[in-house]
Amino acid sequence: MSKFGEEWTRGFRDMLTEAGGRAIEDAKMSGAEIDAMYVGTMAPGSLVGQEHIGALVADYMGLTPIPSTRCEAACASGGVALRQGYMAVASGIHDCVAVGGVEKMTDTPGDEIASALGGAGDQEWELFMGATFPAIYAFTARRHMLEYGTTEEQMAAVAVKNHANAAKNKYAHFQNEITIDTVMKSKYVASPLKLFDCAPITDGAAVVVLMPLDKAKKVCEQPIEITASTQASDYLALHSRESMTSLNATKVAAKKAYEQAKVSVKDIDIVEVHDCFTIAEIMAIEDLGFFPKGQGGPASAAGKTALNAEISVNTSGGLKGCGHPVGATGIKQAVEVVWQLRGTAGARQVKDAKVGMTHNVGGSGATAVVHIMKNDA
Amino acid sequence: MSKFGEEWTRGFRDMLTEAGGRAIEDAKMSGAEIDAMYVGTMAPGSLVGQEHIGALVADYMGLTPIPSTRCEAACASGGVALRQGYMAVASGIHDCVAVGGVEKMTDTPGDEIASALGGAGDQEWELFMGATFPAIYAFTARRHMLEYGTTEEQMAAVAVKNHANAAKNKYAHFQNEITIDTVMKSKYVASPLKLFDCAPITDGAAVVVLMPLDKAKKVCEQPIEITASTQASDYLALHSRESMTSLNATKVAAKKAYEQAKVSVKDIDIVEVHDCFTIAEIMAIEDLGFFPKGQGGPASAAGKTALNAEISVNTSGGLKGCGHPVGATGIKQAVEVVWQLRGTAGARQVKDAKVGMTHNVGGSGATAVVHIMKNDA
Repeated sequence: MSKFGEEWTRGFRDMLTEAGGRAIEDAKMSGAEIDAMYVGTMAPGSLVGQEHIGALVADYMGLTPIPSTRCEAACASGGVALRQGYMAVASGIHDCVAVGGVEKMTDTPGDEIASALGGAGDQEWELFMGATFPAIYAFTARRHMLEYGTTEEQMAAVAVKNHANAAKNKYAHFQNEITIDTVMKSKYVASPLKLFDCAPITDGAAVVVLMPLDKAKKVCEQPIEITASTQASDYLALHSRESMTSLNATKVAAKKAYEQAKVSVKDIDIVEVHDCFTIAEIMAIEDLGFFPKGQGGPASAAGKTALNAEISVNTSGGLKGCGHPVGATGIKQAVEVVWQLRGTAGARQVKDAKVGMTHNVGGSGATAVVHIMKNDA
Repeated sequence: MSKFGEEWTRGFRDMLTEAGGRAIEDAKMSGAEIDAMYVGTMAPGSLVGQEHIGALVADYMGLTPIPSTRCEAACASGGVALRQGYMAVASGIHDCVAVGGVEKMTDTPGDEIASALGGAGDQEWELFMGATFPAIYAFTARRHMLEYGTTEEQMAAVAVKNHANAAKNKYAHFQNEITIDTVMKSKYVASPLKLFDCAPITDGAAVVVLMPLDKAKKVCEQPIEITASTQASDYLALHSRESMTSLNATKVAAKKAYEQAKVSVKDIDIVEVHDCFTIAEIMAIEDLGFFPKGQGGPASAAGKTALNAEISVNTSGGLKGCGHPVGATGIKQAVEVVWQLRGTAGARQVKDAKVGMTHNVGGSGATAVVHIMKNDA
C-alpha cells in the first residue's frame, strides 16, 4: 500500500502505481505475468474529473493491453473489486490478477467531497434533503443508544483503540494516540457523533495480487488463501431498512462467508471492520457475531477488541486511525490481514493469527463484502 | 431494453427497472431466482449525483439482498459488466445473474455532459487541454483521411445506414432515415466530424439474464450461448498510442475472441460495433477483420455493411441511430444480437443469422470488449 494521509503533492496515478509495484514485487512476479486487473474506486469522476480508471491504471502501471476493470460500490469499492478478482481467478479465465483500490480526495473542496460521498446513499431521498453521511450515521448512533443504552464514551473507546493501533502502523494516516477525553471534547459533527468519531478524508492506494493457490505456493514465500468471498446488498436508503441499528447486508454476507470458509466466528483471530464512524464498528462486531447485539459498545469500552484481547479488531488502525481513502479501504483491509497472518505486522502483530476476516461496507450499509483468509503454510 | 431517447420524465431507476422486468420475464424467471447482479454505468456521480448504483438497482428491482456490483469502463461499462456476469457464472459462484446497463444523461446541461464524458479520456492530458471527445475522434478521422484517403462522404454513409436500421427499431432513439446530404450539410462539431457523424446524448437502459447453458436450455425458449467474452486495454491518451487510426485494444480482444469461440471473422453473420462517431465504425470493421485496413470507408460507402449485405453492421441502428446512453450501450448490443440470433428482429431481421458479435469501446479506445454469441438451438 501507499502511505495513507493527506498527500498534497501526489495524484492517484502516483499512489496506485507505488502500491502496485510493491504488491507485484512482494508476490515475486513481474508485471508481464499479471493478466488482468481490477480497481476499486468510488468517485474519481466527481472528485477529480477522471473516469475509466481501469484502463488508466493498466496504462500507468505498464500493464497495457491486459483487461482492466473498475468496480464501484461506494466505500465498499475495494471489497467488490477484490471479489471480482477472486471470481476471475476462480473461473479459470485469468491466472494472475492484480486488484487495487484508490481514492484521491484532498484535491477537492470539503463541501464537494461531502456531496460526492453523499452519492453513496440514496441521492434523491437522503442527500438531496440534506442528509450527508455523518448525519445518516448519527441517526444510527442515536437509535443504537436508545435501543441498547450505548454511550458516547463507548463510541469514543473505539476511536481511542484504533488510534492506538494506527500509531503502530507506519502506513497509517494518524500516528498519534488519543484519549477518551480527546474524543469527548471534540466538536459535534452531527450529534452524537463528534469529530473524533469520524474517519478522516484521506488519500491512498493499496494493491494485492491473486492467483490459484497451487501456483501461489510455488512463487510466493507466504501465500495467504482466500477461503471465503461474499457480498450482499440492502435497501439503499436508511429509511427503507428493517432496522437502523443492524446491517442486514453484513449479516447475510457474514453467514455465507462462515459457511464458505467452513469456520465459525470463534475461529477468527483478527478482523478488519468498516469503522467509517465509531458506531459502525460497534454495529459491525455485533452483526459479524463477535458480540451479542447491543454488547458492541460495552465490549469496546472494556477493551475486548484491543490488540491481542478477546478479538483483535482493526489492527491497521481501521478507517478511523489508518484513514479512509474510500476505494482503497477494502484492499487495505486485505493487506493488513495478509501481514498479520504472515506474522510481519511488527509492533501491532497479533499472536498466533491463523484466520483473518475483512468487512467492507458501502454507503450506510447497502453493500457489505466479507472475506475470510488463512495462512496456508 | 427500455425505449432509448430523451426521456425527460424518467430517471434511471425507472428505465433500468423496466428493462430488468422485461429481461427476467423473457428468461421465464422470477426475481427470486436471480442471485447476483452487475450494472454498467459510466458517470452517474457526475451526471446525477448518485454512485453506488449496484445496490440501488438491486433495491429498486426488489432483488435485495443479492450481491450487486457496478462496473465502469467509460463507454464500455456495459460490456465489462457483461463480462463480469459471464465470469460470475463461469466460476460457479453464481448460478443466475442479471446484467444491466444504464445512463441518464438529459438531466445534465450540455457542457457538464461534455465534461463528464471527457473523464473517459485522460483528464490531465486531454480534457484539461480542451480536447473533448468529438475533438479526439476528429484527430482520428483526419489522420484516417490522410493515411487511407477516407472521405467525409464515406463517413456520412455510416450514419445514413445506421439511421436506416434505427428506423426499423422501435426502441431506437431516432426513427427517421437520413441522406448523405443530411450529414454533409450538418454543422461541423469538430472538423471533419459534423453533427450527424456523432452519436446523440441519450437516456436508456438494457438488461440481459445469464445462466449456465444446460440450465438455460431447460428454462428459456431460445437461449443464446456466449461463446467468447474478451477484453483488452490500451494507453488512455490518444497521443500515447502506436497508431491513431487503429485501436489495438479492439485487435487484441477480437483475436482472443475468435480463438475462444473457435470461429473466424468469416463466420460472423451480424456485428454490433461501437460507432460513437462514424469514423469509429469504420475503424471497428477494419480492426475486427471484416475489411482490410483502410477499406472501411469504401466498404461503407458501397453498402457492404447494410442489412443483409456482406456483413450486417449495427442492425440496431448503432450508437448513432439507436442512441448512446453510455453505460447501456454494451448491453443493448447484446440484446440486439440475441434478438437477431433468435430471428425476432422484425423488419431489420438478418437472414439465417447464426453467429453474432458485439464490440464495445471505452473512451477513445483504452478499453475494448468483444463478445461472440450463437444460437444453440
